[in-house]
Amino acid sequence: MICIGIDPGTANTGFGVVELRGTRLLALDGGVVTTTADERLENRLAAIHTRVAELIEEHRPVAMAIEDLYFGRNVSSALAVGHARGVAMLAAAQAGIECTAYSPQQIKTSVCGSGRADKDQVTAMVQRLLGLHEPPRPDHAADALAAAICHCSQVPFLIGAG
Amino acid sequence: MICIGIDPGTANTGFGVVELRGTRLLALDGGVVTTTADERLENRLAAIHTRVAELIEEHRPVAMAIEDLYFGRNVSSALAVGHARGVAMLAAAQAGIECTAYSPQQIKTSVCGSGRADKDQVTAMVQRLLGLHEPPRPDHAADALAAAICHCSQVPFLIGAG
Repeated sequence: MICIGIDPGTANTGFGVVELRGTRLLALDGGVVTTTADERLENRLAAIHTRVAELIEEHRPVAMAIEDLYFGRNVSSALAVGHARGVAMLAAAQAGIECTAYSPQQIKTSVCGSGRADKDQVTAMVQRLLGLHEPPRPDHAADALAAAICHCSQVPFLIGAG
Repeated sequence: MICIGIDPGTANTGFGVVELRGTRLLALDGGVVTTTADERLENRLAAIHTRVAELIEEHRPVAMAIEDLYFGRNVSSALAVGHARGVAMLAAAQAGIECTAYSPQQIKTSVCGSGRADKDQVTAMVQRLLGLHEPPRPDHAADALAAAICHCSQVPFLIGAG
């Protein structure tokens, strides 16, 4: 099973593509779509949509996992996240794959065993679970990989921890 | 000049297509894209994106005008508006047209002469400015037509009030 994880944001949208092969997790891809504030917002959203659609086309995931909103955000940052989240989810719908939202707490619990894990713990556990030689960077890519791992972990009885 | 106005929302996205012909404003189209909560969110966003893209294809506007966020919204409603707003703006970018955001106050001022006008005043002035036989309904369509009128009114010296 291949899953694409998305950590949405207008300036930086993290992505991570994870395959659950038997009981092993493999990282197929990971990175960040970056857009700059000097571009028009609609063109920044088009860049995010295009890249996510390309990743789906390339890796053929069966599912998208996407971070839910962080509590404590303010209204304008929620709107900005919503823009990026909307176009990423649209790419999933257009490819006929389902999109599941997970809260940061669910993702951390599934990757680290605790909803209160910090960023360094998440990065270290993503590295370990995916057998990476280096810690995944930047944080947005690590968070997207963590979302994809979280979705894979919903498949019962399949995942061991290493 | 043809402009499409959008009043974005996940459940109801209002749209209105207005043409500025000489100094006259004409309503070419107006309505609402409605989606229901029993559909998956990504499919609701796809329905909004598809309909907005169809309207752009049909009417060939040179610009999109979109309502900015209402102050006083909470974080979760801002996220929901952001989703719909993102996919509508994406449709503009994909068609190569620019999207301009206007606050509710700017729109009301441009249509009614006051940023504190109420919904009934906006509806009545949209009807009058567009020469409609009936008040535009529902409110989301009236708001989208008002956004399009607001954009047209940015073209200096062209619009009279009737």
